[in-house]
Amino acid sequence: MREAAKGCGLDIQVETVSSPPDADDVFDAALPVIDIGDGAYLPGCPAEAGARLALASLEYAAQLAIDGGVDAIATAPVAKSLLSKVGFAFPGQTEFLASACGMPAENAVMMLAGPQLRAIPLTVHCALSQVAGQLSVDLIRGRAAIAAASLQRDFGIGHPRIAVAGLNPHAGEDGKFGDEEKRIIAPAIAALQQDGIDATGPHPADALFAPHKRADYDVALCMYHDQALIPVKTLDFDQGVNVTLGLPIIRTSPDHGTAFDIAGKNIADPGAMIAAITMAGECAARRANG
Amino acid sequence: MREAAKGCGLDIQVETVSSPPDADDVFDAALPVIDIGDGAYLPGCPAEAGARLALASLEYAAQLAIDGGVDAIATAPVAKSLLSKVGFAFPGQTEFLASACGMPAENAVMMLAGPQLRAIPLTVHCALSQVAGQLSVDLIRGRAAIAAASLQRDFGIGHPRIAVAGLNPHAGEDGKFGDEEKRIIAPAIAALQQDGIDATGPHPADALFAPHKRADYDVALCMYHDQALIPVKTLDFDQGVNVTLGLPIIRTSPDHGTAFDIAGKNIADPGAMIAAITMAGECAARRANG
Repeated sequence: MREAAKGCGLDIQVETVSSPPDADDVFDAALPVIDIGDGAYLPGCPAEAGARLALASLEYAAQLAIDGGVDAIATAPVAKSLLSKVGFAFPGQTEFLASACGMPAENAVMMLAGPQLRAIPLTVHCALSQVAGQLSVDLIRGRAAIAAASLQRDFGIGHPRIAVAGLNPHAGEDGKFGDEEKRIIAPAIAALQQDGIDATGPHPADALFAPHKRADYDVALCMYHDQALIPVKTLDFDQGVNVTLGLPIIRTSPDHGTAFDIAGKNIADPGAMIAAITMAGECAARRANG
Repeated sequence: MREAAKGCGLDIQVETVSSPPDADDVFDAALPVIDIGDGAYLPGCPAEAGARLALASLEYAAQLAIDGGVDAIATAPVAKSLLSKVGFAFPGQTEFLASACGMPAENAVMMLAGPQLRAIPLTVHCALSQVAGQLSVDLIRGRAAIAAASLQRDFGIGHPRIAVAGLNPHAGEDGKFGDEEKRIIAPAIAALQQDGIDATGPHPADALFAPHKRADYDVALCMYHDQALIPVKTLDFDQGVNVTLGLPIIRTSPDHGTAFDIAGKNIADPGAMIAAITMAGECAARRANG
């Protein structure tokens, strides 16, 4: 971190501390860092040594959060292909954290949150033609229940309103283009309503993210990756936060990748990382006062 | 129209004219209207008599444009289910207009255009799980070529830049989630480039509509309805125009429906209809000067 600052011509003091409480004494004068190992600074050159450091940092931070040594963690982007070469056996950090917390991966719900929109993709990294086959009443119902509880507990929303998107254009237009709305999505919404959760839909996805519609809900439950990610990135590209709901710990992350192509050039926009850290702190404060 | 104005308490003069050139003499004092029949004014109560008037108006306007009696037409939303009951045998106005012009429907390309984004959906009203099966190199190549020619001719863009979206999350991430990018989209882009068309991609769709990305292209070629419509409606809900490319005539339409629920209440936002009329006029002027 010292070399990164120096390379960018920034006058930033870095001081090592041994545990999180020590950071309080340091913050006024320097950036406190826990030293769990070090390596060569090679910006934009991903290497296995760096991946090992990233993995050790992630494991250390997760354990701190699980043990109550910190109130929340904000994790930076990682290069998954390199992590998998050094022994990381998960599709992403979300699944790793669920496992570290001793929970099934399906209970860790990814939510993208920007200043203008919160959205949850029910399916993530699968081909678009496989999405319909992955949807089920239980999936929608389970994720929506986790989202509702988390929005209450960590986001201070007393009565969360969940807008459930349709899968097909015009939400299928009464079964004309696809029947997933009738077979899966509408029954799931009816079940959620019976459970006392304020779920509406299935809403035609194309209009769901227009300004006047966004005022009607607290989170959009989306059927696939791009249905959630397109509106979040279109509206809030530089301030999008990826927050994991449903875990005993609080975890946020900036909604962007490693950007190796601009590493070390001092041109990256830190907005999303700042937003992730800020949101982690806000959630921790709400949970502490809850 | 007189009754609609009266019902809203608006002091608007309406004057019938017999042909478009007569409108010039009237516009300063009144709204010129060609009288091709009349019926009861029943706002918010769709009826077959109204559908017959709408169909007659559409047929009259299309023929005027085809005969050169007007330079462009801007059509209002129609209730398709009622139109089909009175003999309209097309999925939408776009297909009707292609037929009226004696062209195959696949040559009429729907583009959504707002102040911040232009996007073309390659597939429209089909179930999401059917989208992949409808894509082909020829479809992408044909639509992109029509789009490039129309952006030059009618939109004054000398060297149109076409960004082609991927189908799958992260544009398939090198084949990990779906192979349509490798099998269909990338070969189509390569063919377009050989044809001298500035096509790029396949771009991951989630980031394609972020502000800094939108500056890199003139139109986004999207694989399915909501991939195009979500960003257009998220950004430009009240100013979105549906413009038909590839026809000998110029035709625009507001990108919204009939809104029967607010008909006659004087609360509809006319922004998109105004934008559609303005765009039709601008395209006509460019074509006349081209």
